[in-house]
Parts: sequence; C-alpha cells; structure tokens
Amino acid sequence: MSTEYFRDISKIPYSPSAGPRDVLCFKHYNASEVLHGRTMEEWLRFSVCYWHSFCGTGADPFGFPTLQRPWNEGGSPMDIAKKRLHAAFEFFTKLGVKYYTFHDRDMAPDGATLEESNRHLDEMTDLALELQKQTGVKVLWVTCNLFANPRYMNGASTNPDCHVLAYAAAQVKKGLDVAKKLGAENFVFWGGREGFHSIYNTDVAAELKHMANFFKMAVAYKEKIGLKCQFLIEPKPKEPCKHQYDYDAMSVIGFLKQYGLDQHFKLNIEPNHTTLAGHSYEHDVVMASVFGMLGSVDSNTGSPDLGWDTDQFPMDIRNTTIVMKTVIEMGGLQPGGLNFDAKVRRESTDPEDLFIAHIGAMDAFARGLRNAVRIIEEGVISGMLKERYLSFTEGIGQKVDEGRATLEELEEFIKQNGEPKVTSGKQEKYESIFNHYL
Amino acid sequence: MSTEYFRDISKIPYSPSAGPRDVLCFKHYNASEVLHGRTMEEWLRFSVCYWHSFCGTGADPFGFPTLQRPWNEGGSPMDIAKKRLHAAFEFFTKLGVKYYTFHDRDMAPDGATLEESNRHLDEMTDLALELQKQTGVKVLWVTCNLFANPRYMNGASTNPDCHVLAYAAAQVKKGLDVAKKLGAENFVFWGGREGFHSIYNTDVAAELKHMANFFKMAVAYKEKIGLKCQFLIEPKPKEPCKHQYDYDAMSVIGFLKQYGLDQHFKLNIEPNHTTLAGHSYEHDVVMASVFGMLGSVDSNTGSPDLGWDTDQFPMDIRNTTIVMKTVIEMGGLQPGGLNFDAKVRRESTDPEDLFIAHIGAMDAFARGLRNAVRIIEEGVISGMLKERYLSFTEGIGQKVDEGRATLEELEEFIKQNGEPKVTSGKQEKYESIFNHYL
Amino acid sequence: MSTEYFRDISKIPYSPSAGPRDVLCFKHYNASEVLHGRTMEEWLRFSVCYWHSFCGTGADPFGFPTLQRPWNEGGSPMDIAKKRLHAAFEFFTKLGVKYYTFHDRDMAPDGATLEESNRHLDEMTDLALELQKQTGVKVLWVTCNLFANPRYMNGASTNPDCHVLAYAAAQVKKGLDVAKKLGAENFVFWGGREGFHSIYNTDVAAELKHMANFFKMAVAYKEKIGLKCQFLIEPKPKEPCKHQYDYDAMSVIGFLKQYGLDQHFKLNIEPNHTTLAGHSYEHDVVMASVFGMLGSVDSNTGSPDLGWDTDQFPMDIRNTTIVMKTVIEMGGLQPGGLNFDAKVRRESTDPEDLFIAHIGAMDAFARGLRNAVRIIEEGVISGMLKERYLSFTEGIGQKVDEGRATLEELEEFIKQNGEPKVTSGKQEKYESIFNHYL
Amino acid sequence: MSTEYFRDISKIPYSPSAGPRDVLCFKHYNASEVLHGRTMEEWLRFSVCYWHSFCGTGADPFGFPTLQRPWNEGGSPMDIAKKRLHAAFEFFTKLGVKYYTFHDRDMAPDGATLEESNRHLDEMTDLALELQKQTGVKVLWVTCNLFANPRYMNGASTNPDCHVLAYAAAQVKKGLDVAKKLGAENFVFWGGREGFHSIYNTDVAAELKHMANFFKMAVAYKEKIGLKCQFLIEPKPKEPCKHQYDYDAMSVIGFLKQYGLDQHFKLNIEPNHTTLAGHSYEHDVVMASVFGMLGSVDSNTGSPDLGWDTDQFPMDIRNTTIVMKTVIEMGGLQPGGLNFDAKVRRESTDPEDLFIAHIGAMDAFARGLRNAVRIIEEGVISGMLKERYLSFTEGIGQKVDEGRATLEELEEFIKQNGEPKVTSGKQEKYESIFNHYL
Repeated sequence: MSTEYFRDISKIPYSPSAGPRDVLCFKHYNASEVLHGRTMEEWLRFSVCYWHSFCGTGADPFGFPTLQRPWNEGGSPMDIAKKRLHAAFEFFTKLGVKYYTFHDRDMAPDGATLEESNRHLDEMTDLALELQKQTGVKVLWVTCNLFANPRYMNGASTNPDCHVLAYAAAQVKKGLDVAKKLGAENFVFWGGREGFHSIYNTDVAAELKHMANFFKMAVAYKEKIGLKCQFLIEPKPKEPCKHQYDYDAMSVIGFLKQYGLDQHFKLNIEPNHTTLAGHSYEHDVVMASVFGMLGSVDSNTGSPDLGWDTDQFPMDIRNTTIVMKTVIEMGGLQPGGLNFDAKVRRESTDPEDLFIAHIGAMDAFARGLRNAVRIIEEGVISGMLKERYLSFTEGIGQKVDEGRATLEELEEFIKQNGEPKVTSGKQEKYESIFNHYL
Repeated sequence: MSTEYFRDISKIPYSPSAGPRDVLCFKHYNASEVLHGRTMEEWLRFSVCYWHSFCGTGADPFGFPTLQRPWNEGGSPMDIAKKRLHAAFEFFTKLGVKYYTFHDRDMAPDGATLEESNRHLDEMTDLALELQKQTGVKVLWVTCNLFANPRYMNGASTNPDCHVLAYAAAQVKKGLDVAKKLGAENFVFWGGREGFHSIYNTDVAAELKHMANFFKMAVAYKEKIGLKCQFLIEPKPKEPCKHQYDYDAMSVIGFLKQYGLDQHFKLNIEPNHTTLAGHSYEHDVVMASVFGMLGSVDSNTGSPDLGWDTDQFPMDIRNTTIVMKTVIEMGGLQPGGLNFDAKVRRESTDPEDLFIAHIGAMDAFARGLRNAVRIIEEGVISGMLKERYLSFTEGIGQKVDEGRATLEELEEFIKQNGEPKVTSGKQEKYESIFNHYL
Repeated sequence: MSTEYFRDISKIPYSPSAGPRDVLCFKHYNASEVLHGRTMEEWLRFSVCYWHSFCGTGADPFGFPTLQRPWNEGGSPMDIAKKRLHAAFEFFTKLGVKYYTFHDRDMAPDGATLEESNRHLDEMTDLALELQKQTGVKVLWVTCNLFANPRYMNGASTNPDCHVLAYAAAQVKKGLDVAKKLGAENFVFWGGREGFHSIYNTDVAAELKHMANFFKMAVAYKEKIGLKCQFLIEPKPKEPCKHQYDYDAMSVIGFLKQYGLDQHFKLNIEPNHTTLAGHSYEHDVVMASVFGMLGSVDSNTGSPDLGWDTDQFPMDIRNTTIVMKTVIEMGGLQPGGLNFDAKVRRESTDPEDLFIAHIGAMDAFARGLRNAVRIIEEGVISGMLKERYLSFTEGIGQKVDEGRATLEELEEFIKQNGEPKVTSGKQEKYESIFNHYL
Repeated sequence: MSTEYFRDISKIPYSPSAGPRDVLCFKHYNASEVLHGRTMEEWLRFSVCYWHSFCGTGADPFGFPTLQRPWNEGGSPMDIAKKRLHAAFEFFTKLGVKYYTFHDRDMAPDGATLEESNRHLDEMTDLALELQKQTGVKVLWVTCNLFANPRYMNGASTNPDCHVLAYAAAQVKKGLDVAKKLGAENFVFWGGREGFHSIYNTDVAAELKHMANFFKMAVAYKEKIGLKCQFLIEPKPKEPCKHQYDYDAMSVIGFLKQYGLDQHFKLNIEPNHTTLAGHSYEHDVVMASVFGMLGSVDSNTGSPDLGWDTDQFPMDIRNTTIVMKTVIEMGGLQPGGLNFDAKVRRESTDPEDLFIAHIGAMDAFARGLRNAVRIIEEGVISGMLKERYLSFTEGIGQKVDEGRATLEELEEFIKQNGEPKVTSGKQEKYESIFNHYL
C-alpha cells in the first residue's frame, strides 16, 4: 500500500540543541545512547497504543467526534481497519518506537457472530504480522476488549449471566491465540466492567469467584498452547463501574493470593488509575515493584484535580524521574515496557499533534531516565537511606529483620536501653536533593 | 467513689412515642427486643470508645481545647485517670451499653519509663476490672497507642530505627497481658504511623517486612500466654501519614496473605476510613465480609465532602441499614461489635451532648437493624438476586462456578448458542425497593 | 399518531399501601394533596428532561449504546425526531408530570447549515406546541446545546475564534425565539465548554469578557422580543473541561456581579455538580437561595465516591428533605422547578426502568416534601435557631446586625462585659431531631 | 542579644556550583541578581511566617509535640515570647529574608483579659519594632488569630452570639493599631471559623451579613487611624469548618461585590487552599490576578492525594514557574509577597531542617522566576496566544470584544460565512514548550 498518511513528517530526529518551537524533534530521547549499562531504548521500551492514537475519535460524554483521520474514512470496516494499520505502522516507524499494544477489537472490527469476528481478526493479524516483519516493530501486549460491546454492560467474567461470561471466555481464547501468533510479550486483562454500580443488585462473593475461575481457565489455555508471554492485570479503581474489583495494586495482589493465582500474573500499572484510587502518582508502581509484581507501566498522566481518567501524555519530569528510578532499581521492566496509554486532547485535531504529544512524553521520560541514572550513580540518596535503616543490620535489629526476635527480647532491650533517641526524618532535605537532579 | 458526673441524667429509657425534643431517650433502640432470633443488644453489640468520649479535649489543628470535663481536672495524672474511669463507667451504665474500648495510654498515663508506664497500667486495670465486675460492662477490644508519643513519629513497627520498634514491641507485650487480664474479646492494631510521608526517604520493602515480623511476634506471644481474643487490623488509607500501608480492607488482606498472617487476623472496619480511601460507606464492611475477614466495625461516619477523619456519630439510616444487613447475613459480628469510634463536635460542649450523640447513633443503628430484618425476612431483594445469578446453578454455569470449565468448552457453548440476551440490571428498581424499607 | 411506545404501562396511580414489589405506582407522591397551603404538584413542579430520557443511548466513554428505543429507529432524522417527541409526550402524560426541558438539538436534528437546523427546529416546535396544547404539558426551560458539535470543542462564547462565538450567538438567538414560541418559563445557559483544559493556551481575562458580552447580547435580544422567561445559569465545576468558569454558585454570582449581569440571571442548581465542586449535596441550593439567586433545581444525584457527573435519579430522603425545606422557606421555586436531569443507568435497559426511576425519584421528593412540611410546621428546629441568634435582636447585637456599630464600641462592650459564655453548638441534637422527621 | 539559637549556621551563601549534599546554601536564589528589570529580591519578596516556624510544636491530631525548640522553653510566657522573637530575627537575618508575617497571638501570649492581652502585645511589638530597625526586616502582613481560642469555636464575626463577635472586633481593632505601629504592608483576614459544620444549626444569611458588617467596621477604623496597608482576605474552602464562606477566590470576590466591599480588599491566595477547593495549584492565583484582586501569595504546597492542609514547603518547579509567570505579567506582587506559610514536617526535628526547608523553597522559586523570565522574554508562548485570539482584534470580533455586537449581527455573519474552520487547541505543543523552559 502506497498511501502516506503523515506526509509532512519524516523520521523524528534527535537534536539536543533545538529550540522551544521545534516540537517535531527529540531534544532528550536518543535511542542508542547508553546510560547505566543499557541504551535508552532498552531502558524505556516505549510502546504506542493503538486504540487512542488510531481508533480515537475525540468523542466525549458531552461531544461528538472531533478527530477526522483519513485512515478512518472510506470503504468497508475491514478496508478501514487495514488503512488504519498501515497508518499506525507508518507512525511507529517515523516516531522510532519499537512496540505497540492493541485490543482485539481495535485491530479488527466486530463481526455479526463470534466466528466472523474471529475471521476478521485472522485476516488483520496476517497483515499485522507482515508489517511487524517489515518494520521490526513488535507487540508489547495484546488485550481483549471485554467492556465496549453492550453484552458486557453488566460485566464479562463477573456477569450475573454465565452466557456472557462464556462469550468473554471465547474471546479471550482467541486473544491468546493471537498473542501467540504475533509474538506478544505480554497479555493484559483490564476489568473495566468487573465490579458494580450498585451493591444492592450484586453478589460480590459469587462474582469474585467467577472472575478467579475465569483467570484459571486462561492460565490453563495459555499453558496448553505453549504461550510464553507474561499475564498482566491492570488495576483501576472505578470508571466505568462505580467500583471495580481490581481497585489498585494491593487489591489485585490480595485477590490473586486469595485465589492462588499470584504465580501466574503481574501488574500493568497505569498512574492515572493510581491517582484515581487516591494514591500519589508513583504509588502503585512502587508497591507493585516492592511485591515483585510490577510487569509493565501504562505511562500516562491525569490531572490531580479531576476525578476521571483523562489519559494525558506524561509531561512531568519529577514523575518520570521517580518512575524510572524504580524501574532501574528493579533491573528494568522487560518483558514489560512503557506503553503510552494516552490520547491527544480532542481539541488537538492536527495530525502533527499525535507526533508532538508522543515526542513530548518520550522526551519527558528520557529526562526522567537521565535524572534517575544520575541519582543512582551518584548514590547520595541511597547512601542516606542505607544510613537511615542501619540499625537493622546488626544486633537486635538484625534479629527483627530476619524474623528471629520475640516481644520478650525486645522488652528486655528497652529495659536495658531505655528511650530511643530522636532522629529527624529530613524530608525537606531529601526533597531538595531530589530537586537538585531535576 | 461517690462523685456523680452526669447528675442531670438518669438511665436512658426506651420511649418509642417520644417527640423530637426528647433527645435523652431511645425512640428506636430497645435492648431486649427480639428481632430475627436475637435481642437488639445481641445484634448490635454497641461499645463506647474511651479516648474520644473521656479523654477528648476538643482541640483541633487550629484551636485549643473546648471541652471542659470535671473528670479531667484536679490532682495528679493518676488521680485524673481514676476519676475518668469512674465517669466512664457511670456513662456506660446510664447509657446501657455493655462494651467499651480503649488504648493503653488512654487508660493510664505514660510514665517516665516503660516500667513506670506499666505500673500505671497495672494499677488502672485493677480498678477497671473491679468496675467491670460491678457493672457487667466488658472490653470489646484493647489497643496500644503506638502513634501519639513523639518516639513513634517515624513509625512504630515500621520505624527505620529498630530501637523504636523494640519500644513498640514492649508496649504490645504489655497490651496483650492487659487484654488477658480484662477479658478483652478482641485486640486491635491500628497503624497510624505505619506508612510514609515521603517515598524519597522510605525503604518500603524493609518496612513491610518489619511490620510483618512484628505481627508474627505478637501472634507468638498471644499463643504463649493463652490469650483467646481475636486479633484485628484496622485499615486507614492516610492521616496522619500521607500513605498508610493498611490502606483499606483489600490492602490489608493482600499484606496478610503475602506474609502468611491471614489465619491470625481479621479486620476492624471504620467506615470513615473507608470513605477516605475513595470507597462508598459500606464498601470495606462488605468486602471484608465476603472474604471472611470482617471482625468488628468502628461505627462512625465522616462527611463525604471532607478529606480527613471527622469521626462523627453515625446518623444516616440508609448506611446503618446496609451495614446491619451485611452483619445479619454473616450471622452477627461476635466477638466483634459496633464500636462508636466517634466524638462529639468540639462545639458540642454540654455534658448532655455526649449522651445525645450516642443515643442518636444507637437509634440510627436500631432503625437500620429493624429495616435490615424486614428486608431479609420479606426476601424480596434476595429473591431478585437469586434470580439474577440463576444461570450459575446448572449446566455450563455450574461448571464455571465450580471451577470445572475450560475456555474451549465455553467457546463451544457460544458457537452453539450465539449472542446472550440483554438483561436489565434494574438498579433503580433495587434502589426504590431498598428505599421502601427505610 | 397512533403508535403507543409504553404499551405495558398505563397512567401511574397513587397507591399508598402498595408493597415493595409495586414499583409502577406512587406510594408517596399524590399530585393533588395539599400540604402547607399548596398541592404537591405546585410545590414540586417536576419536569422530565428530554435528552437523557429520550435521546440517551447508554453509550459511555468505554462502551457502545445499550438502550434500544423504538422511537430512535427507522426513518429519516426528522422522522425519528417526531417519533421521539410523541414517545416523550406519552411518557409525560402517563407519568403525570406537567413540565419538560430540552436542548434545541435534542428536539430537532442539526442540519448541514444554520438555516437548515433552524427549519428543523421550526417544524419540530410546531409539533411540540400542538402536543403541549393537547396534553397541558409545558416547557420548564429550553437551552441551547453549545457543547456537543465539534465546532464548540474550544468553547462557544469563550472560543478563541470569534467565528465560533458568532455561531453560538446565532443559535441562542433562535433558541430565544423558540422559548417564546413554546412559552418556556425559563431559559438555561450551561457552559460545558466555557473554561479550559490548559492554562497555558488560555487567555482567561479575554474569555471572561467575551462570555459576559455574549450574555449581554442575549439579554438585549430577550428584551427586544419581549420574552418574559427567567434566564438561568447552571454552574458546573469541571467535566467536560478541566475547569469551567461557572464553577459553582458563588463563582457565578461573583462573575455576574463583576459584569453587571446579576439582575438578569438566576441559577439553576444541579446537586451532582455541587458535589463535584467539593460541597455537600445541598450547599449550592442553600447558598443560591440565601443570595436570592435560586431559580431552579436539576434534581439528580451523584455518588460521593465518584469524580464525574453520573446524573442518577435522586433517591436519598435526607437530601430531598433538606432541598424541599429550603424551597418551602423561600416560598417555592416558581417559575423554576425540579427537573430530573437524570438518566437511567445504561444497564437499565427495560423501557419500564424509565418509569421506575422517575417514580422512585418523585416518591423520594414527595417524602422529602412531607418531612420538610412537618419540620417547618412543628417549628422545633426553627425555634432552636431563633434562640441561637437571639443576641442580634437587641442592644449591641442589633446595632451590628443593622450595620451601625463600630470597632470602638465593640471593644468598649468587651471591656465592660469581659469574656463571652461558652455555648454548645449542639450539632448532634440538631441531627437527631432532623432524623426524627425522616 | 547574646543567645545565638542557630549557632551551627551562618549567613546562607549563594553558591551556584554546590553539590546535592550542600543543602545549606542557595544554588539558585541570588538576591541581588537582576532579571527582567528587577532584582530577585524585588520580584520574590519572600516572607517567613512566624507561627509555623517559631511557634510550631509538631503536634498533630494523632500525636504530641515533636519539635523541641530552645526558644520555647524556660521562663514565663512573656520571657518565652521574647526569646522566640530573638530567635526569629536571627533566623530571618541568617536566611536573608526581608519580611515576616505573624498573628497577634503568635507574637504575644493571650492574657486573662483583653486588656492584659493588649499589654502583652504592646510590650512585644516594642521589641519587634526595635529588632526591625536593627535588621531592616519588615512586616509583610499581620493578622488576628480569631480561631484558636475556644471562644471562637462557633465563629468570630459569624458567631451566633454577638458577644463573641464583639470580642473579635476588639481584637481586630488592636491588630490594626499594631499594623500601623510596625509598618505592616498588608493586613490579612483568614476566616477559619467563619462557616459551618452543620447546615441544620446555621442561619447562613445572617452570618454572611454579620461578616460583611464586621469588615465594614474594620475598613472604617483603618481609615480613621490612617492605616495605609492593603486589606487581604485569604480564601480556604474547609478545615477547620466543614464549609468556610471564603471557599475560594471567586467565592470571596462574589461576597465582596455583594456587600460593596470589593474596593477595600484584595486576596491572599494560598495554593494549598486552592487545591483543597478542587482547583489546580495555580488556579486561584490566576483567577485573582485576572480580576485585579491578587494581593499576595502564601507560597506553600499540599499533596494532591491528601484532603487536608499540609502546608508543605513548595518544591515543584513547574508550579513555581507558573506562579512567577503570573506575578511578572501583573507587574509584581508589591505590596504583597511570597509568604512561606509552610511548616517543616513534624519528623524534621533538627534545627537545620528549618533552614533546609526555606532554602529549598527559595531555590525552587528562584528557578521558577528564572524560567518565567525566559518564557516571557523569548515570547514564544505569548506569540502563540496572540495568534490564537487574533480574530477579536478586528471586524466582528473586535465589536464583540468591545461589547458593541448583537445576536442579530452575529447570526447574519454566520449566514454570510457559514461554518467556522477547525482549529487545534495544541495543548501538547504548549505543554512541550513549557517543559522546554523547566
């Protein structure tokens, strides 16, 4: 296919001395630059999301579509799907991003029956596979859309009607086949309709059990077909449901452990979901990492003053720094990555805005990476932390740390040693030093 | 001791026909009335909290104390502590509540050393035991105050300095001894300083491990001394810390399972904490109950438009109805109860306000209980729910419910049966029927 | 037209003894019953909103339409518009509600040009006028939709491009003509796109001036054509914009006074918007009333734990009681009313759910009215309030109240009289008494 | 003065090449450096607040004092007050800040009577005046504490008891005298208790009138004594009250205009209060500036995930940049300034933490200033904005801008010109360019 959708834009260059007006070049992201033992590309593992950037229309609950995309017009649904895929690969290539993510129903239009939908998906993934080979772009993760079709309005795996759950199961089975076919490195479950709007009409215990059984079937099928990718659950507290079971990182971890699923899943953390759950931006990234459960990051942002998911491109350098610090400290996100689950504002109607937004976010993460590497390599903060927890490395502290102490021993310690000394937490000092690196 | 602190108030009567001005009698709570197989007293298991109602001064972050209580004035700290305890038992008795809850440091003043504090506690609990025997009032739960003393400013079991952790351990050891002595039916851990203000100066992984080890030591000591009470953790998302590890019910459940502690603990849910975590009033009560982890309830309320813990007396009939419906459905809260972790407003300076507030809340729960019993006994809502989930009781649904189905079978079911039918969730119908009972 | 859309439902009866299952009759709302000098119908002035109940599809940001309405299918846009109008009047009549509200673009489909849109509107309002005459149903208010069309994405009266403002002006001119033609009792301005998403690209001062000038033109045209209805502004803090200029009642009052518009406008308060602005449910109703600016109420509710506009049917009796108490105390809302700017949940797919939801809400308001009348007529609370502020009715208090005192006099008063006495605010007593009436 | 309280710390130097560990020198703030026509000191007009930094104890609602300050120990209340003032001036001087702010009751302890309190204040302000002369440090603003004393629990100027209002009036009279004596450049009113906890026990209309009359008396007395300073009201939405009348900038502007007070007052905006009102950090600074009402800024920050006032030191460079951009565009804040209404964390117990926190915040603002100057001087963003609103500078746009257009003309314009063209809002481009300057 010869159509070029972004004719005015060529491959995005790296140009560190560019001025403020130059919004179509990277000023910070330099894919091949090596930092702390890896290239920027290896640390950052950026991914473009298909739904926002290629299927998004700009419609919102109060307004009609605003984004007129040439690839979304003209021809049958399958024709459009193919044009869209070509446009996307043109975009990935010009932007220089090596991964993409998609829902089954983004890639291929829903058919009148499951069988037809599956045929659509077969045809489209043939094309995707070809384009992947041509360009070297890979699938960071696939997911099934189990929330947009009206059949899922009361839930997919938690629907009170098992017929709907069965439909979702059939869709996931196909999704797993697609993941294998395209070599997806991860597979995501986002439970947008797994929750409730009203406690009055909901049997929470039954729904949680069904959701767990659903995941178990997916694990079994994954193993059966020899699919190697990492399963990920993406927490979100609410929206579209009033309450979603996968509220936040700790809720999902509790659920997985309750049902014996924690060996089979990690988490895909989206900071905009984290802030909707009442936490700070980095909270779930840090918590999931601490519990060894951080699989991937949907790198976007919301507005702290808004109570819904705005999926904005992440532009805050402090936030990107703390996320990258966590990522480096755990040795990198692979096989996960930084997926831009973000959309241009519906008012950003120019095709170039798609580029500008991604470039701005990639530069923000490149700055974050650079800052994090300096913080880690200079070791000032880690040195202060080591000092702060020093008491747990010897004597009674070591016994506590290793789980060998008793209340009686600790009481005796106090009887011998009396009141502890006062130690400043020095929060402002840590903040100032952190600011030094921004 | 002969001093009567609430001279103007005699035992609170039940008087169902009393008018709006009669705020010093129960219009709904009738302790001995039998509903759904138990007395109101047995279902409701009310408890008065010692700290708010007898130690509270009305100070807030912007103002000095407003509540002048005769029992808090005159004499040495121990003299005051005794007067306070007498006042409390007078209050319990006149109000007709059979349980109370307290922190170690509410009951007895801090001494200059651990040993002195413990002696204070011994002397005060001797008196408490005597008053318990005289009045029949019992301890619903004890807890240790591990947050008010400046030594705990950076955490107790999660303090970066093991010396502080040791102090907390010594205090808990004594607290467990006190629980045994007074026959407490539960023992609560509230981790107000177990969390962080800044992620920069915090080693979350180390702190969580230390907290878990701390709990394990408490379990070991409990078993050693043959203490029979139920251990409870009380979740709270934030305040005083920016983030507390025991964020909400699911966070605590996840933590307990991670560290193998879930057999030893249940949860003490405070709805004002639940709403601060971004959930609806009843959410954590319901979730904890579903997971078999609901131990007790701190029956209070906040204001949905405020972002801090206001610990108000619960007065909303819809809320008390849904809580009591959950409680009845799980067969009652015993050995837990409904503890009024609530304080009169600092502007409610009259001694009678303490009675008015408790009476209003007890009546609100009595109405909730009555409503819940009618809802359950008439069975309209439960019948609708049973119908709603009917598909899981036979055929493929039953296999899913029992964890015996596969994705392949479910796909086959869809190939045979096609699209599910549309089923209204009927939320407004449920809401209207629920309103019918209020 | 002979089609009957709600065949299974006949006129909703009043049946006070109906049971919980009877959700298709009023148990509390009795239109002709006289309370406190007026009929329920006169006090409550219910209105059905056209957009949610007849144009709503159930689509949400994560899902496709769920509500299949026979009146929305088959034929040209104008054919559908007419069927929809017939369905609506059938609904109004069966429900027994005397008012409706609509946007210009709900009533008649957008045309390719302004002129065509206006012709559509002419044709549809001819039909509406005929149906109004046949049924006696009237227009509570009209409004122009200045937010859904993509042209308004950057604002209508605050758009940086005056060409868009001009379009909005043309639309409002026609809307005012329609208001006159149909005898609308009010005209509402809701500024959903009047605000910003980013302060970086916004000239707030210019936009506010343009919005004020826009309102001035509307006032001038209203006067020119002799339109008698009340102009209303509906505050909302955010959504769809990140920030909307009409944030809440006080923001709008400040704006109106700044630009000399306060004599020409009152407010249409929607409690779901009020709670999104961080206030309690009744706050803006009360504040607008205190400032003499309460024109009408969009009687709906949100969920306090959600950060977006859910437009649920109001079912909380405490809330309806406090709103009706405010309404009675100001002598009624006329020419405003209680407009159900509420939608059935997208999962409530049965046509009867539309009836159930409205009936549930009307009953909730009827209970609120009944409670409020009892509160007012028994006078217990008002008596307590009068007593509380008694000091301002004589002596130095009266001088302060009338604005005749000075700091010097008041200082002298303190020198004579010393410290004021402590007076309990007795919040729990007020709450208990209020509960008595629920 | 012989006691030196901060012995280990000498005058804070400017040392741009200092490393991350050097938290006791300025790396960015260089008082005498000229930027955009003024020195940094002139643009930034920093002020230290007396209450947090010298009276603060570290007590919080869950914990006892943690901050042991030598100046708060030993001697009578007046002795302590004097030591504290000496310590403060030592701090101001070493830090190099030229302004301070205080409440009457911070400076001098409450006496048993108004007369005694006033005598304390006379004596303390004599000393303050002397220290001001010695050091050149000046008063940015004074305010009266009308919220901490229990007498104000139900409000000061809005108290239901006029006796309390009279006390507040007497206190303000003295406060104005003090302002004159010390040459305060502004006088602030913060209405922490002017609002309500319960709408049930509150006559909002009466309270607002009394508050307005109270302000009128203050204006009259100010004029009588020839006090030249600027009156400022500081908005806060809630805390300690459930609702405060001075909710946010627009609420206060509406109130002032309603009561004819807007010529006599400007606003003192605290961003931590702005975010508690549901706005973005800079919102009220921008809105007040647009309305010509920005008088001064309490430069602090909160945590977006917390619902109470944390009064943290501002460290976010993006925030300081946007505030300084607004300040420069309005020509500077004088006679207002940037007052650090911020406190070290209660865990930051080292005396040096007071310095570290102020230095970190001053550097953050110095970076913000530098960024803002570059943004303004390079003119990229302002040029884009000018272009964006160009349509209002000629033709029909100019008529709209000047208030000379009519709906009829604008309709005619649309009939001639048809649909407006689509114009991207380019938010991400603005964000990227803004980031360029950080």
